[in-house]
Amino acid sequence: MRPREILFLFAIGAAGGLVGDAGNVQSGITQYMDSAGPLIWKSAWWFPLLVGLGTIATGVTRLRLGPTRPGFDPRIGVGAFAGVIAIYAASDIAFWNEGLSDSDSIGKVVLCSALALLVASFIADVPGILCGLGAAIAGPAVEIAIVNLDLSRYAPLTDGLFGVALWLPPLYFAFGVAVARITELIVARRTPAT
Amino acid sequence: MRPREILFLFAIGAAGGLVGDAGNVQSGITQYMDSAGPLIWKSAWWFPLLVGLGTIATGVTRLRLGPTRPGFDPRIGVGAFAGVIAIYAASDIAFWNEGLSDSDSIGKVVLCSALALLVASFIADVPGILCGLGAAIAGPAVEIAIVNLDLSRYAPLTDGLFGVALWLPPLYFAFGVAVARITELIVARRTPAT
Amino acid sequence: MRPREILFLFAIGAAGGLVGDAGNVQSGITQYMDSAGPLIWKSAWWFPLLVGLGTIATGVTRLRLGPTRPGFDPRIGVGAFAGVIAIYAASDIAFWNEGLSDSDSIGKVVLCSALALLVASFIADVPGILCGLGAAIAGPAVEIAIVNLDLSRYAPLTDGLFGVALWLPPLYFAFGVAVARITELIVARRTPAT
Repeated sequence: MRPREILFLFAIGAAGGLVGDAGNVQSGITQYMDSAGPLIWKSAWWFPLLVGLGTIATGVTRLRLGPTRPGFDPRIGVGAFAGVIAIYAASDIAFWNEGLSDSDSIGKVVLCSALALLVASFIADVPGILCGLGAAIAGPAVEIAIVNLDLSRYAPLTDGLFGVALWLPPLYFAFGVAVARITELIVARRTPAT
Repeated sequence: MRPREILFLFAIGAAGGLVGDAGNVQSGITQYMDSAGPLIWKSAWWFPLLVGLGTIATGVTRLRLGPTRPGFDPRIGVGAFAGVIAIYAASDIAFWNEGLSDSDSIGKVVLCSALALLVASFIADVPGILCGLGAAIAGPAVEIAIVNLDLSRYAPLTDGLFGVALWLPPLYFAFGVAVARITELIVARRTPAT
Repeated sequence: MRPREILFLFAIGAAGGLVGDAGNVQSGITQYMDSAGPLIWKSAWWFPLLVGLGTIATGVTRLRLGPTRPGFDPRIGVGAFAGVIAIYAASDIAFWNEGLSDSDSIGKVVLCSALALLVASFIADVPGILCGLGAAIAGPAVEIAIVNLDLSRYAPLTDGLFGVALWLPPLYFAFGVAVARITELIVARRTPAT
């Protein structure tokens, strides 16, 4: 990939991370510790950096997994980005009697999972699904490490996956699928197709 | 339909019912009475059975309503399934001041109805719409009977349709449309098309 | 446009306005003052009138912005309408700890914005985006004027845009994009295409 393309992937990843995380932090779902360092908007400075780098890594992985589909339409990229952000924001939604039960909201995990499958049903091919599965493992793993380093934490009752949220795997799955599709569009844009 | 195909319809119906109902039960929107018998996960044992049988009945009805569209793409089926589950999970969402009003949440009924129309706008043909309308009548009717048999009940303020939720008709409508489309895919898969 | 077509645009605008506003009013997000006059369902009588007229104005604007796309499929129109109504209803959703923060919910604004982009990603062309941007400016501007006339008001913490909700611009953007697309369908219906 060309430098401008890599920078673009970083930028949309960092921007999406900031926008989504702002809602999580404002709602109290996630909290940064004092040890996390200075903030950018509502996030610790390293959070958009990590998401941006993860976006680049996902795009590079996509290119290694096989040929990309032709056809450039920016609307597909906007839809892929917006679909992931919608799931991110859905994680801020309150569910009936959430917090009155003694465990994480099943409805929220189901909603985020269904929305992630919907995103994939519109844009995924096999390499995209692989990118999604990779992100669904790597993303939560990194977040679990961050929580264990006492840099951030999830609120009680939304921390059922080793201290992080149970809806992180579907969110990161959709992220991986979307980044793979956007990477395809970046390649297709070089030689505008049919 | 072939036995494997019928079993597949039963399985996705039962699985979807269990997943969606778990959120409804955990959130307190639906409650099974002691008389409902042993549970599978959060649901009375007969609930996934009924949904699975209803899925088969809907698929069989779809085949009787006319020829099916060609073209097999599993993503369409995943999207149809996920769209219905998303509506199911949306029924667990808390709405502003829900419960402070003295009647069921209009916003929730409107949201579930709009999402059901969205699902239909992507996948429905005329027979699919008929399957949706049939399910929108039969599904709530069976649930009203179940509530009247004192096997389960809906929480106050989400029981405005003769004791069951006002968002059940759009949920079942989307269910019927989706099962019709999935049935078409099952038929198309026998002879992989263009 | 023909009288019947203009009437149709008015009718879907007024109906959509009534349905969406009913949820806003019931949930307490918007409130009509006594000075607002008699109600239709939950809305002041002039609200569906204004939305209907705005729908006509948007459709007329769309026609002046260039040629429309061929192809008539009512499902596209149903999906466009339902997408906007879903965003409207999403504004009634409660968000985690909403109201405990001292500012409007970021998550709700992000969700409505992402859903508006999703609607646009499926149906927008350049003239449609222009209609959306125009509506995103004119709609909130009119609502700000209405609030300043003491005819209605938004609840505290959902009034961050000069007294109206921060999620109004994305809602009206989706409205403009959808009305533009529906107007295209109206034109395409005159001469059923490929």
